[in-house]
Amino acid sequence: MIGRSHGIHAEPITFGLKLAVWYDELHRHLDRLTRARERIAVGKISGAVGTFAHLPPAVEAHVCRRAGLKPAPASTQIVQRDRHAELFSVMALIATSLEKFATEIRHLQRTEVREAEEPFGQGQKGSSAMPHKRNPILSENLTGLARLLRGHALSAMEDVPLWHERDISHSSVERIIAPDATIALDFMLDRFTRLIGELRVYPERMKQNLEALGGLVHSQSVLLALTRKKYDRQRAYVIVQRNAMKFYEDGTPFLESLRADPDLAQVLSKQEIEACFDLEKHLAHADEIFARVFGHAQAP
Amino acid sequence: MIGRSHGIHAEPITFGLKLAVWYDELHRHLDRLTRARERIAVGKISGAVGTFAHLPPAVEAHVCRRAGLKPAPASTQIVQRDRHAELFSVMALIATSLEKFATEIRHLQRTEVREAEEPFGQGQKGSSAMPHKRNPILSENLTGLARLLRGHALSAMEDVPLWHERDISHSSVERIIAPDATIALDFMLDRFTRLIGELRVYPERMKQNLEALGGLVHSQSVLLALTRKKYDRQRAYVIVQRNAMKFYEDGTPFLESLRADPDLAQVLSKQEIEACFDLEKHLAHADEIFARVFGHAQAP
Amino acid sequence: MIGRSHGIHAEPITFGLKLAVWYDELHRHLDRLTRARERIAVGKISGAVGTFAHLPPAVEAHVCRRAGLKPAPASTQIVQRDRHAELFSVMALIATSLEKFATEIRHLQRTEVREAEEPFGQGQKGSSAMPHKRNPILSENLTGLARLLRGHALSAMEDVPLWHERDISHSSVERIIAPDATIALDFMLDRFTRLIGELRVYPERMKQNLEALGGLVHSQSVLLALTRKKYDRQRAYVIVQRNAMKFYEDGTPFLESLRADPDLAQVLSKQEIEACFDLEKHLAHADEIFARVFGHAQAP
Amino acid sequence: MIGRSHGIHAEPITFGLKLAVWYDELHRHLDRLTRARERIAVGKISGAVGTFAHLPPAVEAHVCRRAGLKPAPASTQIVQRDRHAELFSVMALIATSLEKFATEIRHLQRTEVREAEEPFGQGQKGSSAMPHKRNPILSENLTGLARLLRGHALSAMEDVPLWHERDISHSSVERIIAPDATIALDFMLDRFTRLIGELRVYPERMKQNLEALGGLVHSQSVLLALTRKKYDRQRAYVIVQRNAMKFYEDGTPFLESLRADPDLAQVLSKQEIEACFDLEKHLAHADEIFARVFGHAQAP
Repeated sequence: MIGRSHGIHAEPITFGLKLAVWYDELHRHLDRLTRARERIAVGKISGAVGTFAHLPPAVEAHVCRRAGLKPAPASTQIVQRDRHAELFSVMALIATSLEKFATEIRHLQRTEVREAEEPFGQGQKGSSAMPHKRNPILSENLTGLARLLRGHALSAMEDVPLWHERDISHSSVERIIAPDATIALDFMLDRFTRLIGELRVYPERMKQNLEALGGLVHSQSVLLALTRKKYDRQRAYVIVQRNAMKFYEDGTPFLESLRADPDLAQVLSKQEIEACFDLEKHLAHADEIFARVFGHAQAP
Repeated sequence: MIGRSHGIHAEPITFGLKLAVWYDELHRHLDRLTRARERIAVGKISGAVGTFAHLPPAVEAHVCRRAGLKPAPASTQIVQRDRHAELFSVMALIATSLEKFATEIRHLQRTEVREAEEPFGQGQKGSSAMPHKRNPILSENLTGLARLLRGHALSAMEDVPLWHERDISHSSVERIIAPDATIALDFMLDRFTRLIGELRVYPERMKQNLEALGGLVHSQSVLLALTRKKYDRQRAYVIVQRNAMKFYEDGTPFLESLRADPDLAQVLSKQEIEACFDLEKHLAHADEIFARVFGHAQAP
Repeated sequence: MIGRSHGIHAEPITFGLKLAVWYDELHRHLDRLTRARERIAVGKISGAVGTFAHLPPAVEAHVCRRAGLKPAPASTQIVQRDRHAELFSVMALIATSLEKFATEIRHLQRTEVREAEEPFGQGQKGSSAMPHKRNPILSENLTGLARLLRGHALSAMEDVPLWHERDISHSSVERIIAPDATIALDFMLDRFTRLIGELRVYPERMKQNLEALGGLVHSQSVLLALTRKKYDRQRAYVIVQRNAMKFYEDGTPFLESLRADPDLAQVLSKQEIEACFDLEKHLAHADEIFARVFGHAQAP
Repeated sequence: MIGRSHGIHAEPITFGLKLAVWYDELHRHLDRLTRARERIAVGKISGAVGTFAHLPPAVEAHVCRRAGLKPAPASTQIVQRDRHAELFSVMALIATSLEKFATEIRHLQRTEVREAEEPFGQGQKGSSAMPHKRNPILSENLTGLARLLRGHALSAMEDVPLWHERDISHSSVERIIAPDATIALDFMLDRFTRLIGELRVYPERMKQNLEALGGLVHSQSVLLALTRKKYDRQRAYVIVQRNAMKFYEDGTPFLESLRADPDLAQVLSKQEIEACFDLEKHLAHADEIFARVFGHAQAP
């Protein structure tokens, strides 16, 4: 399929590579969440200001062990809120990555692109008013929920600078964002898992779109073929660009324009020009990337 | 051109209507900014805690008048920061609307859509590596800058709850966000003005895209034609949807499928079906909308 | 009572002046909210993309009138979200001002200050563990809730840049923040109204604190008395500061130090020095400020 | 010194325990920053869409090694922005903890508390208008700067959901927040280090404040002494509270009130009541807490 930068066709890619990038990102989140979880899983029974004035640390140790928590090394009336703020920030980061994936799906489902679609049931209504529609509503829903989680992260950060050995201003915040953020993220992960599992992918459309620009996506290959011949890069750029622009002007396929360019003919043979349009080299390192992301077991 | 909801073709629209919606939005911002400006344009020379202990209010009145400001009715050591927070919020709202417009242009410039493009100079490089590209970089730039302004609005809000008759924590914030936010928004407005003034619009592409779904965009018209004949809405929906889906399955134009549907034939005549595909009714009220937005001078 | 900047005693003030500043601020919020309300109170029945393709504007006008709304001059599938973002921003600004007032009350209730206290019922427990405590928990609660509203404002702003004639990503956000923000702010206003109505104010403590710095709060008066005599400001500052610092060093009352300063004696008479310690001039313009804030009816 | 919750005197604490809580918090930040640094220290030379179409992975590996970076396992046109967002979030968390410490110093320097003060040079002016003042301006400055960093974290999160293989909207954001956030945090850490190194601490004031409530801070000790004798907790609370409230009413020292309470006399002997006022038990576990925070070397 075509890879896109700035929303514009760039160079070929595979759908699997998109997923590899996502998998790699989620793997980072797993580590972030694991660390945040370790740091939030602490308890304290150190008294009203953290001095163990009325109960010795041994009681704290015993109760925390029973609760599956570690004692906070030092505490005030409460466990310090940087621990919570980290957790809410990590949850917001995860939600934001899900928004990124959801945005990609929304793009791929656009009428003009249609390279992938969310699962769409037999009798489902895409739109109550317009019976022809299939809308990426699951992905749009995920996009919105990420905005909530980012707001929560912010509120959680503001909970950190409490007064002295504790003020209770964090409480009204946490009563709301603790359930809201965790439930929303759980829902998002669940929804995304189902969505990605049942995503419809359309290879034929991908191929059509790949060819939509009449071969322009190989412009860099031509540019590099010229510079490899020691041709001046600046002049090479001008040659490639002027042939590329013909496609925008009157639809002339890129290869055809290149073949007819006398300046180009002086540097590159017909075969060398055609070799620039080879798709295979774009996929040559895909397995290697997969091996880096998924581990050697998946490598060829 | 086609109007889109959820990124999916919905019903016809005109490009002018998009602009009317934006103009209307900017008009609201103008009022918001005017009010915020009125409220920030106040001064105070009421002393260290706002009591005029060493200088009478008359001095404040005189100096403010000379500076083009109104005296703040009541002040502490400083003018209260809700005034500033309002201004930064309004600036963030304006930047966010500019992001909305920029996002639209980025969508319209997508390779698969190409209904509009940012100005692109003769010798300009779209991409240093890929000579065929024309990227919507001005709009992407505006999109990013809006994120900064939203961050500033947040910082400005946190500056409001100062201690007693003033603490100076707002100062380090304002020294940075006051120049940064105003300069960035000025730059954004300037850039957007130029961008919209020189935007390339491609009516032919709009027409092509309008027809890309084989007439599906008229599905609601058919649905309403049926219900106007007292046909049960639920059954009408099923009929329209099954004919619409044929286009996705094998590319059969919607009108063709409808003409061949025996259930439909019992309710609507061929002429009535064809009348559903009339583009004109979608444009019938455009002038009225323009008149509402731009005032009666522009009305027909 | 003493006015404070940077948390440090500055110059005398009255408690009423604090309230006047707050009243003035709430008055600004009332205007902001009124405008935001006007702009959100619009409706639209302009169809799937805002063209009135299937229903004329007259229907929209009729229904909006019945619903107490104005028709949005131009709309897409929805009313534009800058209107909502403004409302949530204004609500966050109001909540933030309430946090400012709540922070003041928390400061005034500090053990060392105790100039005011939240209402505290006869049988109420201040702390389950420490029976002697009276905590400003209502104000702390308000402080926290403001953090939530600021998060909501942020999420609402991110809802503005929807795609084309509408995407539905704003929906999951609004379903949560619309009830949460409005209910929280209503609760905050209600709680603050009760709190301020039943606030306990301790004039005796205010007087004690006013005198706590041994007269240092009159240092600016002495400084200005010197400069009014054309005494060099820089040298005047040195004289006043060195006498002021004696209080911090060994507790010598400021007036006593000043009376014993030979340099000062050459410029100011004993009576002139004592006149600098007059409290009345700090209150001389209070009525004028009240008149500016509350209108002429309240003026003397 | 007295420990405070809700701004109200609670139970005794030591100044060292406050610092131990901070040290422990900074230790967590060090780990967070180390991890974020590892994850941001990656590079990529995988081409326009991440496929290595024109250069093999070996080149990337070589260049990254030379630059002290690891190759990103999978990339698009860019390194994924969750890595950056994590870094900015962690920097905001660190800044927020510094705000917490700064807020504590501002509280301790309040005129009524004065248990600690920022360094104040011999000839320094605390206030240009009021020569007697020493304001905690360094701490107020840190408080404000944290607000900026939180805004940056937010902007960085919004940079994550880029389109397809990259859009360039993150660029205008990063050009500003990358230098601004790192420079501001470096400045904050530097300023805080100096501030804490030269902080003036006033043990005599701490002792005075500790005794300011006439012994009320021992209320929990009396409550627990009663319940240890199997006295009903509810009734014990009533007894302790009514004696505590006498101090607020007419200043009667808590111990005196307790000694005169006939109900109390039936349960606790005079010696047992006096034993409740022992300060030592509040400090008994301090060394143990230090050992937990600073390691066994510091343990007794």
